[in-house]
Amino acid sequence: MIATQYEGNKTFSVVEKEIEAPAQGEVRIKVAYSGVCGTDVHIYHGMMDQRVAMPQTIGHEMSGVIDAVGPGVEGFAEGDKVVVRPLDDRKAKPSDKGFNHICEELNFIGIDSPGSMQQYWNVPAFTLHKLKEHTDLKLAALIEPLSVATHDVRLSGLQANETAVVLGGGPIGLLVAMVAKEVGAQVIISEVNQTRIDKAKSMGLEAVNPMEVDLVEYVKSKTEGRLADVVFEVAGVQPALDIMTEVAGIRGRIVMVAIHGQPKPVNLFKFFWKELKLIGARVYEKEDYEKSISLITANELPFEDMITDVQPLSNIQKVFENIDNNPDGMKVLMDCQL
Amino acid sequence: MIATQYEGNKTFSVVEKEIEAPAQGEVRIKVAYSGVCGTDVHIYHGMMDQRVAMPQTIGHEMSGVIDAVGPGVEGFAEGDKVVVRPLDDRKAKPSDKGFNHICEELNFIGIDSPGSMQQYWNVPAFTLHKLKEHTDLKLAALIEPLSVATHDVRLSGLQANETAVVLGGGPIGLLVAMVAKEVGAQVIISEVNQTRIDKAKSMGLEAVNPMEVDLVEYVKSKTEGRLADVVFEVAGVQPALDIMTEVAGIRGRIVMVAIHGQPKPVNLFKFFWKELKLIGARVYEKEDYEKSISLITANELPFEDMITDVQPLSNIQKVFENIDNNPDGMKVLMDCQL
Ligand SMILES: NC(=O)c1ccc[n+]([C@@H]2O[C@H](COP(=O)([O-])OP(=O)(O)OC[C@H]3O[C@@H](n4cnc5c(N)ncnc54)[C@H](O)[C@@H]3O)[C@@H](O)[C@H]2O)c1
Ligand SMILES: NC(=O)c1ccc[n+]([C@@H]2O[C@H](COP(=O)([O-])OP(=O)(O)OC[C@H]3O[C@@H](n4cnc5c(N)ncnc54)[C@H](O)[C@@H]3O)[C@@H](O)[C@H]2O)c1
Ligand SMILES: [Zn+2]
Ligand SMILES: [Zn+2]
Repeated sequence: MIATQYEGNKTFSVVEKEIEAPAQGEVRIKVAYSGVCGTDVHIYHGMMDQRVAMPQTIGHEMSGVIDAVGPGVEGFAEGDKVVVRPLDDRKAKPSDKGFNHICEELNFIGIDSPGSMQQYWNVPAFTLHKLKEHTDLKLAALIEPLSVATHDVRLSGLQANETAVVLGGGPIGLLVAMVAKEVGAQVIISEVNQTRIDKAKSMGLEAVNPMEVDLVEYVKSKTEGRLADVVFEVAGVQPALDIMTEVAGIRGRIVMVAIHGQPKPVNLFKFFWKELKLIGARVYEKEDYEKSISLITANELPFEDMITDVQPLSNIQKVFENIDNNPDGMKVLMDCQL
Repeated sequence: MIATQYEGNKTFSVVEKEIEAPAQGEVRIKVAYSGVCGTDVHIYHGMMDQRVAMPQTIGHEMSGVIDAVGPGVEGFAEGDKVVVRPLDDRKAKPSDKGFNHICEELNFIGIDSPGSMQQYWNVPAFTLHKLKEHTDLKLAALIEPLSVATHDVRLSGLQANETAVVLGGGPIGLLVAMVAKEVGAQVIISEVNQTRIDKAKSMGLEAVNPMEVDLVEYVKSKTEGRLADVVFEVAGVQPALDIMTEVAGIRGRIVMVAIHGQPKPVNLFKFFWKELKLIGARVYEKEDYEKSISLITANELPFEDMITDVQPLSNIQKVFENIDNNPDGMKVLMDCQL
């Protein structure tokens, strides 16, 4: 079989490997599609070389079909369509308080151990979610990032009669906006990239450019002065941090989805003054995957539009080079059988 | 009667005034004690000259006895012991979503309109809470700051089996610690002033100096590695902001009580990584006053120890000068009948 490997220094190799039998408690998956995540791009850029044991097969957004079932695995059979929830929490401790999806010694499969950018992938059976037979495997590769969104929206407590502002209309921001809209809320995306604004609009989402429109006044006018009940920070830049505390109304909840590597200035006075809440959100829990699977299975949201390119796995080097040159694209899938 | 007035420029005057009849919907209170709040000290320092209409009678932490009842007031009578919840929310709008205690056009009585540092004080009857006949009026002057603490602890959702770390052992920090302990939680105060550490200990509270002890390791050792379930930021300094995200365990809640005038660096990565929550908290709601009144009425906590000085109202200038020279003192009460 073919596997790809991150070798460091902005380089992927494509190697020939033996297909291995699944170990005790594992299954072997014939990977169908593996999406490229912002984290994968970070890895490619060498930003996570401290953490990633090179050469490493990366990838954690995927769909596939069970190809072989290892000893001791129950409830799964060859031919089942599945996705992997790539969190190996077997080292969770009591001090993790049961929040095992973010346990201190979490192993994130596809970063800390081999991932899905290969033709066959052996994983522990406890990471699997079974899909319905008719599920589109391309869309199913969106279940992992979609689960980030269902997690964020769930933690926000967003209600149908509320307004959500999504700062950043990248892949995660658009998925958050779709899930928030599905709740029944009014959703406004703030995005600075015109191509991405157009993309959001073409998907039936409302999107404005905060460089052209006074976002706070705009949201005020759309809410009879209440401002946002929920703000999702999914841009990861200082201007988003500056505006999040302005665009949130009294007792507004701000969900911190973006990853800020360094401490950054935050207007804590506004947290006090309006009794705002900041809610840190990281990956997903089992129920978030279940919600995403039901959304993908129903296929009533514009998920298709999220996939802007599908490329053969063997093109991996080109794919990552292109992502650098084209910040407008949304989700690229690697077809792992080509 | 005698009234005090902030005149600007670190100066209070003591003036002779007519006692006025209470207007429609108002009562006249014979003020017993009026506590000095950190905000009053800010005003004295000229930090709020933009907001305070000089000359102004300030003061909002008080106890007293109803002296006259204006037309249209029901449920109150001359001789009733009362405290005032100094929030005039009559300009609340629908966009305040019912959170009238922090409504956009809140009038904070004692800052935005005349306060309690005078012998007689006319206030709207809707601000009153009646006290039991046997209530100690000195302790009752603590009900306002105590309600900040009951509000903070309520918003934190602190449970009996949890651990709370209180950053800052000033008046508000000690009250928060007392209320948190009353919930049944393990409470650890972090304070840098040795006199205040000793004070806290003498009140039966646990207090450590983060300059001498590694606070994170200390809390870890006291919680079997879980770290704090709840952190109260009541110090108002950058080192407290730096440590709050370290000392909080997975899914820890951080209550922002302190007022930070400027945006300050916050470790947002830790919010993401541990799924922390930041909860802004400002003043109190009706139920927080009711909780405080029942605590003061029961008088089972070391409230007496909070009062480090009682001075005649006419000494106001000296009192504020002394507070500047003695950062060790806790709560100073003005006796408004002297
Ligand atoms: N919490 C989690 O578990 C989790 C999971 C996945 C990704 N993330 C994080 O979520 C964030 C978003 O991920 P993504 O893949 O969508 O990233 P992305 O970089 O593709 O999207 C960010 C978007 O923000 C836009 N933007 C930049 N400045 C802006 C501004 N001032 N106002 C509004 N928009 C602005 C950019 O144009 C871009 O479209 C990243 O920080 C990523 O690390 C977190
Ligand atoms: N949220 C509200 O409605 C509300 C109401 C009242 C007061 N406040 C705010 O609460 C805060 C505390 O009020 P206070 O009257 O107790 O103030 P204070 O200044 O008396 O207390 C702060 C304490 O923090 C201590 N401290 C300083 N550096 C420290 C550090 N690195 N670690 C630990 N402790 C440290 C100081 O020694 C001091 O004892 C202030 O910011 C005040 O403005 C907020
Ligand atoms: Zn990802
Ligand atoms: Zn006060």
